[in-house]
Amino acid sequence: MTHIKVINPNTARAMTEAIGLCARAVAAPSTTITAVSPSMGPASIESHYDEALAVPGLLAEIAAGEHAGVDGYVIACFGDPGLPAARELASGPVVGIAEAAMHAATLVGRGFSVVTTLSRTVGRAWDLAHQYGFANACRGVHACDIPVLELDDPASDARRVVTELCAAAAEADGSDSIVLGCAGMAAFCAEVSREVGFPVIDGVAVATKLVEALVSLGLRTSTRGEYAPPRPKEYAGLLREFTVE
Amino acid sequence: MTHIKVINPNTARAMTEAIGLCARAVAAPSTTITAVSPSMGPASIESHYDEALAVPGLLAEIAAGEHAGVDGYVIACFGDPGLPAARELASGPVVGIAEAAMHAATLVGRGFSVVTTLSRTVGRAWDLAHQYGFANACRGVHACDIPVLELDDPASDARRVVTELCAAAAEADGSDSIVLGCAGMAAFCAEVSREVGFPVIDGVAVATKLVEALVSLGLRTSTRGEYAPPRPKEYAGLLREFTVE
Amino acid sequence: MTHIKVINPNTARAMTEAIGLCARAVAAPSTTITAVSPSMGPASIESHYDEALAVPGLLAEIAAGEHAGVDGYVIACFGDPGLPAARELASGPVVGIAEAAMHAATLVGRGFSVVTTLSRTVGRAWDLAHQYGFANACRGVHACDIPVLELDDPASDARRVVTELCAAAAEADGSDSIVLGCAGMAAFCAEVSREVGFPVIDGVAVATKLVEALVSLGLRTSTRGEYAPPRPKEYAGLLREFTVE
Amino acid sequence: MTHIKVINPNTARAMTEAIGLCARAVAAPSTTITAVSPSMGPASIESHYDEALAVPGLLAEIAAGEHAGVDGYVIACFGDPGLPAARELASGPVVGIAEAAMHAATLVGRGFSVVTTLSRTVGRAWDLAHQYGFANACRGVHACDIPVLELDDPASDARRVVTELCAAAAEADGSDSIVLGCAGMAAFCAEVSREVGFPVIDGVAVATKLVEALVSLGLRTSTRGEYAPPRPKEYAGLLREFTVE
Amino acid sequence: MTHIKVINPNTARAMTEAIGLCARAVAAPSTTITAVSPSMGPASIESHYDEALAVPGLLAEIAAGEHAGVDGYVIACFGDPGLPAARELASGPVVGIAEAAMHAATLVGRGFSVVTTLSRTVGRAWDLAHQYGFANACRGVHACDIPVLELDDPASDARRVVTELCAAAAEADGSDSIVLGCAGMAAFCAEVSREVGFPVIDGVAVATKLVEALVSLGLRTSTRGEYAPPRPKEYAGLLREFTVE
Amino acid sequence: MTHIKVINPNTARAMTEAIGLCARAVAAPSTTITAVSPSMGPASIESHYDEALAVPGLLAEIAAGEHAGVDGYVIACFGDPGLPAARELASGPVVGIAEAAMHAATLVGRGFSVVTTLSRTVGRAWDLAHQYGFANACRGVHACDIPVLELDDPASDARRVVTELCAAAAEADGSDSIVLGCAGMAAFCAEVSREVGFPVIDGVAVATKLVEALVSLGLRTSTRGEYAPPRPKEYAGLLREFTVE
Repeated sequence: MTHIKVINPNTARAMTEAIGLCARAVAAPSTTITAVSPSMGPASIESHYDEALAVPGLLAEIAAGEHAGVDGYVIACFGDPGLPAARELASGPVVGIAEAAMHAATLVGRGFSVVTTLSRTVGRAWDLAHQYGFANACRGVHACDIPVLELDDPASDARRVVTELCAAAAEADGSDSIVLGCAGMAAFCAEVSREVGFPVIDGVAVATKLVEALVSLGLRTSTRGEYAPPRPKEYAGLLREFTVE
Repeated sequence: MTHIKVINPNTARAMTEAIGLCARAVAAPSTTITAVSPSMGPASIESHYDEALAVPGLLAEIAAGEHAGVDGYVIACFGDPGLPAARELASGPVVGIAEAAMHAATLVGRGFSVVTTLSRTVGRAWDLAHQYGFANACRGVHACDIPVLELDDPASDARRVVTELCAAAAEADGSDSIVLGCAGMAAFCAEVSREVGFPVIDGVAVATKLVEALVSLGLRTSTRGEYAPPRPKEYAGLLREFTVE
Repeated sequence: MTHIKVINPNTARAMTEAIGLCARAVAAPSTTITAVSPSMGPASIESHYDEALAVPGLLAEIAAGEHAGVDGYVIACFGDPGLPAARELASGPVVGIAEAAMHAATLVGRGFSVVTTLSRTVGRAWDLAHQYGFANACRGVHACDIPVLELDDPASDARRVVTELCAAAAEADGSDSIVLGCAGMAAFCAEVSREVGFPVIDGVAVATKLVEALVSLGLRTSTRGEYAPPRPKEYAGLLREFTVE
Repeated sequence: MTHIKVINPNTARAMTEAIGLCARAVAAPSTTITAVSPSMGPASIESHYDEALAVPGLLAEIAAGEHAGVDGYVIACFGDPGLPAARELASGPVVGIAEAAMHAATLVGRGFSVVTTLSRTVGRAWDLAHQYGFANACRGVHACDIPVLELDDPASDARRVVTELCAAAAEADGSDSIVLGCAGMAAFCAEVSREVGFPVIDGVAVATKLVEALVSLGLRTSTRGEYAPPRPKEYAGLLREFTVE
Repeated sequence: MTHIKVINPNTARAMTEAIGLCARAVAAPSTTITAVSPSMGPASIESHYDEALAVPGLLAEIAAGEHAGVDGYVIACFGDPGLPAARELASGPVVGIAEAAMHAATLVGRGFSVVTTLSRTVGRAWDLAHQYGFANACRGVHACDIPVLELDDPASDARRVVTELCAAAAEADGSDSIVLGCAGMAAFCAEVSREVGFPVIDGVAVATKLVEALVSLGLRTSTRGEYAPPRPKEYAGLLREFTVE
Repeated sequence: MTHIKVINPNTARAMTEAIGLCARAVAAPSTTITAVSPSMGPASIESHYDEALAVPGLLAEIAAGEHAGVDGYVIACFGDPGLPAARELASGPVVGIAEAAMHAATLVGRGFSVVTTLSRTVGRAWDLAHQYGFANACRGVHACDIPVLELDDPASDARRVVTELCAAAAEADGSDSIVLGCAGMAAFCAEVSREVGFPVIDGVAVATKLVEALVSLGLRTSTRGEYAPPRPKEYAGLLREFTVE
């Protein structure tokens, strides 16, 4: 029995539920998925400010998961917020959905394009591509300019807009596949892929399978160096509950 | 039921069997593993010449797999020989063990070192790290200078030599994990990892789980561009059986 | 009159005072320096976990600075924590001490080495060098393995240890200068530099001068794209005070 | 007397003859050119599959050349198939036409564009540019979408199509020269260059001169490491003739 | 009292005066600015040839500055001609306006575009971006195709042309700021910036502040390695006055 | 009949003669070699200052060569001084010995090491490797710390010192060949190569053959962009003879 905790780092419950459904849809029969939102932080993540302030809540969920014996974690926001800090805290593997989707994209094609939400997040997607080694494989990042929390609002017509942008991006960039740049797009990934006729990749699903794979292989985050558990230390004020003993 | 064909591109049957055991040890209950060697080609792969001549036999096995309804393939040689050609031929995903191991290493740590067989293969490992985007994550490639087919010969003392080299390489390079640079080392991966106390990664096991994951996610190689099926074409002479109709 | 707020993102008051002294020592007569620690967060920053949790307090200080009419900010921790988020929040320029020191190093020589505190922070220093474009100029990162809060403890003999490491690092790496990898080393920068006989660079001093320069040039963070102010959004729970209206 | 063997790795005899003419047109009076096609393999090379299966025949020609005392070799296909394996086998220098053309382009200008045949080969051209160190110098790869064997078919109007694409590519990319991406274009290189008024570079001619130069300088492939002769080894089945003794 | 010598490496006196005004406009009250042109060399710098031949005159000015006790130098031509040689010769810091502007651009945004004079200088701007580590941050280089000495000629309408190109370049490249690619544009930097509404950066102003900052920090060019003073050596012919004793 | 002018950019006549001998030793019977030193400039080139001041004399020799109908040029100093300016001036090809040697090294092996004169030139060699695209192929730069003009002084024992350093560098770096980093080492290249048993490459010889090859192929420097002839312009003072009309 493998227990995977999927953490949506924003506080939008409806999105968390949709993410949980996507993860469960691909999980093995022997895997239990718990999908949660933090009790603190931003309603959605659309800036460096939002992302930075989503991390404490995310880390609190990791700490709670460690007490509950969770085997591995998915960080279900395309900026992969708090990923290195989460790796220090968790004993099992932690995978972000941006890295997961980009890894998968390089296994099914040479180049991929990212289709994301707001233009202001384009730089962050490129940063991650550089950090993960996929700056050459990533051939373009395209914004649909629909805010995160309007993706599931029928008025935004997101499904159609994203489908058209996926097709246009692959054509413009000569890409083999599309990486969806927001967990809020996971719900319509399969439909978009069917319609455009080439791989469209949702990081929630891929990350779930990668965590399952790492757990079954007995591979945990190395504690040799950078990702060793944080040193015991006092935390002050509002954040005193994060003190490491 | 998922059918994965694990192809050892050299003709050493004992090695093929050991590779099959490693793949089956991590495969899901619903996965069938077929491990094969080609009927033509080199006894082991230790040079560009060997690698180039291992590819026709490998491609013949892919073609046979397509007739047999195989769902996905593992190329079980650390040079990932013939990987792009195999992707053109197979309808399901194809994963090489070098790429698989390097992907996994970047999910459980920042930097990894490769421990390989002969010194002359060091350049090839670096090439792959560059191609896959892991040139920064790869911090060193170290040869134990034991030929492939002597790895399971007690006289080579390979298990001890490799264990010591893994520990020394991680120390010298400040690496978080070790990637084993030969399918012939898969058999003692778990033991080495236990002994050194940090992740030691065998690509055969990882590639098997990655193919399982891609198949369950419905992700196949994109046929949009470079990996479209080969065009119909006549092949001459000794290789006429490779004609594409 | 220019008002620069120097934020030490950890809660160690003694260190904040020392940092304030260093900034004031180089500031122009017309510059006012305010040096502060946040009211929440870790006592020192020595891991990704510490760094992530130092950011909310830092951002609260930026927000307070905006109300107080501050002209520019220095983030006085070598990991440059929260720098992009701070840039979204502040109307004036924000400079981190790692970027400041690295910029200066490339103006006074070809290659530099970083001398930092704990080994586990070496990866972070390399990350920053890559992000800022100085991966080629940075020729080595060396840890003295003295924790941040022991740097000013006579028992750690930090001054001597750091001096020797600076000399050894420049020699080993063929570097032209040394970048000190912790704000806690600022106090003895001048002395170390005198002793080794080549430039040893403290980011607190450089960042102070860079903020002064940018303010006097009328250069503020661009709001064209990624660094536009955060969108209005509700923040929940412990972090509700960060809500953007 | 220098003997250079120019190997067209596909089995199209007419193309081999045209390639031989181009090589002879630039060779020194003291150079003998032998132009050959392998007895096995694909009629043309337009995919990774084709390229992989062209290599055995190419290597057989190198082996034959070694018995015949050949001084150096040209691999006359723009993918430079089998180049590292050929270097292990040959005692004299081996030069591929893609590398030759790219080297020359960087000696007569800052940036070049590649004009190639089918779109699916664009990725391969970029791969080579990366491997050879010319990723910055290569500013674009453009496909004319004429199959290799139709280049000399008047119906394809290849000469005109390629001329127009060369002019357009240089303009779009701000390039100083064009590298022709197929040995089948060698025949009309001079004419295209005359018409567009800037350097258009055919790798067959350049590679011939580079091999001549290396031979006259006494420079052979180093056998210090990766390119040492293959180790003695048995080859099975269809490929048993490749056994190394 | 800080004495900064701003060297316009071409012989156009009007341009030198305009550059001096720009530098003085941003200099601290305690700074003295001397703006000079060399007594030998080209009237303007628009090619590698011009740039190479501007260097002797520039170095003569540095040598004269050393006798006059100058504290630091600005090289006021966007190609940063002779910068490494000047660093060997000067005891105080030397900053080029291209590097200065690019450094500043990365402190106020993620990506910048360069707006330069003639198309033929585009490659040089990219070269500098690569050398300084800003190849990723530099998202485009755009030529207005107005020769250097016509920038202040009303007939060229340079102010309007440059303003429009700055706006268009930022839009096309998704850049946060513009770097002006010629000292001759310094005079209208403020106006252009006001009009486009985002940071437009003139290297003359930034370099002046950077030299001030380095001088006040006591940071001089390191003499540990590459930038040590030139060895004593005889110079012949026309250049005998450059002999180092 | 091909006329190649080999320009030693320093004023050391003995060295120029030795360089001329090396070029003539490899030139084709139909090639005329003229080896010259400029009438102005430094006695040897060992710093950026020396290099910058060697360029005017070099360019004067190019201009003279153009009047004399020279077909192509070799710049015989390992820093490749003035190469882009020379390309603007010359109608035929211009090749530097550093680029020539590095190009050749990548054709006979995967990695090379450079063996140079003084430590202070190590950075320049790396710069060139980066500019030419060979930063990955260049695995190390090693200084023998013998000044240029003492290389042919028996007291320096240069031949032995260089031989030992070549062997040690290849071993330390795992290189396939050595590139000699000074034209003054050309005279003993063959002997060193024989002694170490792997390719040792002298750029003078290679550049001569490359110019021959480019001339015979009709490949001249492109005038499409950056390397177009310099615009007509007045030059002042000492350098007035460089005026372009």
